Amino acid sequence: MPKALQGVDQSNAPYVIVSSDTHAGLFVEDYREYLESALHGEFDEWLVGRHEHRAMVEELNADFVNEWESVNEVGLRGAFDPDVRDKTLDADGVAGEVIFADGDAVTGMEAPPFGAGLQAGMITDPRLAWAGARAHNRWLIEFCATNPPRRAGVGLVPITHGVAEAVKEIQDLGGKPGIKGIMIPTMWHDNASYGHESYDPIWAACAEAGLVVHTHSGEADRDSYNENMAQYMLEVPFWTHRPLWQLLLSGKFDKYPNLRYAPVECGSWWLGDLLFKADAMFGGRNWKVKKMSASTHGLIERLPSEYVGDNVFIGASTMSKVEIRRRYTNGVDALMWGTDYPHPEGSWPHTVERLETDFQQVPVEETRLLLGLNAVRCYNLNLDELTAIAGDIGPTPTDLNQDLDLRTDPNAVREARFWFDDYNIEWPEQ
Amino acid sequence: MPKALQGVDQSNAPYVIVSSDTHAGLFVEDYREYLESALHGEFDEWLVGRHEHRAMVEELNADFVNEWESVNEVGLRGAFDPDVRDKTLDADGVAGEVIFADGDAVTGMEAPPFGAGLQAGMITDPRLAWAGARAHNRWLIEFCATNPPRRAGVGLVPITHGVAEAVKEIQDLGGKPGIKGIMIPTMWHDNASYGHESYDPIWAACAEAGLVVHTHSGEADRDSYNENMAQYMLEVPFWTHRPLWQLLLSGKFDKYPNLRYAPVECGSWWLGDLLFKADAMFGGRNWKVKKMSASTHGLIERLPSEYVGDNVFIGASTMSKVEIRRRYTNGVDALMWGTDYPHPEGSWPHTVERLETDFQQVPVEETRLLLGLNAVRCYNLNLDELTAIAGDIGPTPTDLNQDLDLRTDPNAVREARFWFDDYNIEWPEQ
Repeated sequence: MPKALQGVDQSNAPYVIVSSDTHAGLFVEDYREYLESALHGEFDEWLVGRHEHRAMVEELNADFVNEWESVNEVGLRGAFDPDVRDKTLDADGVAGEVIFADGDAVTGMEAPPFGAGLQAGMITDPRLAWAGARAHNRWLIEFCATNPPRRAGVGLVPITHGVAEAVKEIQDLGGKPGIKGIMIPTMWHDNASYGHESYDPIWAACAEAGLVVHTHSGEADRDSYNENMAQYMLEVPFWTHRPLWQLLLSGKFDKYPNLRYAPVECGSWWLGDLLFKADAMFGGRNWKVKKMSASTHGLIERLPSEYVGDNVFIGASTMSKVEIRRRYTNGVDALMWGTDYPHPEGSWPHTVERLETDFQQVPVEETRLLLGLNAVRCYNLNLDELTAIAGDIGPTPTDLNQDLDLRTDPNAVREARFWFDDYNIEWPEQ
Repeated sequence: MPKALQGVDQSNAPYVIVSSDTHAGLFVEDYREYLESALHGEFDEWLVGRHEHRAMVEELNADFVNEWESVNEVGLRGAFDPDVRDKTLDADGVAGEVIFADGDAVTGMEAPPFGAGLQAGMITDPRLAWAGARAHNRWLIEFCATNPPRRAGVGLVPITHGVAEAVKEIQDLGGKPGIKGIMIPTMWHDNASYGHESYDPIWAACAEAGLVVHTHSGEADRDSYNENMAQYMLEVPFWTHRPLWQLLLSGKFDKYPNLRYAPVECGSWWLGDLLFKADAMFGGRNWKVKKMSASTHGLIERLPSEYVGDNVFIGASTMSKVEIRRRYTNGVDALMWGTDYPHPEGSWPHTVERLETDFQQVPVEETRLLLGLNAVRCYNLNLDELTAIAGDIGPTPTDLNQDLDLRTDPNAVREARFWFDDYNIEWPEQ
């Protein structure tokens, strides 16, 4: 049984819910005052393209855009208005949140300058990449300061455009109230891949500053899709979690034990099988593993699955049924539920209904980890302050239609992680 | 229950075993007579590098190379000697085989000229890519003609180096005794991806000639691994099965209903979850699917999982325990077992022991599909001739320590493919 479950409250007390995946951002024009003035000219050119993009999306999906924006008019303003935001979180029963850029996923009108948010990897000019990121970070620091206990803001750091600049930005973000992580470009494109030692000063700085490193769903290898949207949709999780294996298998979590990383909004369904393969190939004791591990011996100190729930957390957003069922395989101590507010792919504005149905078969102590305590541990959030907020707005286990007598089977994780038995891998000490 | 199971022999008759993954090739020098003479000069230069590679591997892994090559000295000659090969297949209990290039996976001394086999995608000069492929194909046609009922040879067609040349090569290979498929480069590199319509004449030609298209494990995105072998090993299955989704999601199996494709030696563990995601996103009926499928509507005619076992087969090589357990999820009518002979990663020379243990929990009729009948269907092999061979050398269910009374649960596939119930997807007619 995972250590994280020990001593967790099994009573009907309200859940401390942390959404591990929310978004915030100014309307594009309003970023101007946060952007260095030397770039205002280029910013104005970029704005023209943004508005053209909006017009195109409006035309292609008129019904959806109109309905989404009119029905949710008030709540959508929470992307940049802290009072509206807190009221919306209250209504969802969410005490705390981890905040990424790009408030508007429908027409892209709350993107940081030059697309420095979820599409950061597509910027080729380092000047624009840094200026856009810093403009958003300046605003985000102000925004998170409006209610630090509830906010865990994630700054933008385009590490592919300069390691020294990245370290400086990380040091500037560190310690700011309510700033808890950085997002790096999901793809490294033609730059060195993230396992390369040239990035090490960045991981060192994040570990030092206590900032969690993130990649967030959005980018993929578009050149390979021939405009076929299905290709994109099926591959985007791979491209989002790919950096996890770069960091893990190159030993960054051994070199920087305080380093934490979370892939966000790419689900968790893919995780167990990759842990199975990685544990079996790089940690097992059958003949095949012995032979193959010669070339990988000494790369990492623990089994790959041992880093999960310690250095690796998963911003799994609104979990599907199968992802909830597979929680023991993927890490009941690592999965972090989230709403994706205010994006339409997530649970908002139907979060309450989802919560009332999705966790009925899950013991209370596990639900506490998934809905909040894993995030509290990952981001080192203030549990006392969040508990006080949750006391007013958090749903109770009974509200979620849960059975208070349901307990965790002590063998659940062992059975779920079948590969330990299949490959005679020694079970790690808990 | 899959149609393919209906009427399958449940008796103790010997299994007709087809290895869906074997390798054959001449010693590098011996390809000279199959290579057009204008390239003999470049071939000699390439040979020097090959021998240097062999010397390096010998030095790095002296113990393994020496032991492998001395213990298996006779059997390894089956890579190019048809009599030795047939005796080795007999000893394994294998009636038929699907033959890929590169007989020597240890030191690479049986690679086609210029590395035109498993590493074909790394050749940048089209002249060398085609010359190497054609040299191997000329030899392979001779080799398969030594015993056409047992052999299903897979020709080399570097489609990224010219569509017209590819179509001509496919037409030349079609109808040759014992030639049953083509292998294309696993990665498309900077060329158009395989879903692009420019490749359509190739799929049309394969469908017309009855040749199964393959990608085989070997290549990956090496530039991203910083010489970290673990990164390579964890990602190589992705790069191998990636073309499956290019073909499937761009509707090639609708456009060419006789087209068949198999990814080989990348296991099958990854398949179920991608079918789950693809079926749920592109075929379900929940609100999210409706919204998302607008952009993908009409791309394909059936649910992605419906093509599996019909157009899509999986050369799963020696299946792991979990892959055998997951056969209903991944396609009991699509998975094809294999030995990888004469490569050390496979079951040979311990095939008999593996067979005696691995299928004890599997009903006989399902084992017949996995061990042979799926391959017979995929490659349109001559079942009568294979049955005659198997009568002399095939193990019986009792030899595999199986329970003859074990039957397939009619609900097994429905339960294994959980996403139909989770997402209210209509179950297709069987």
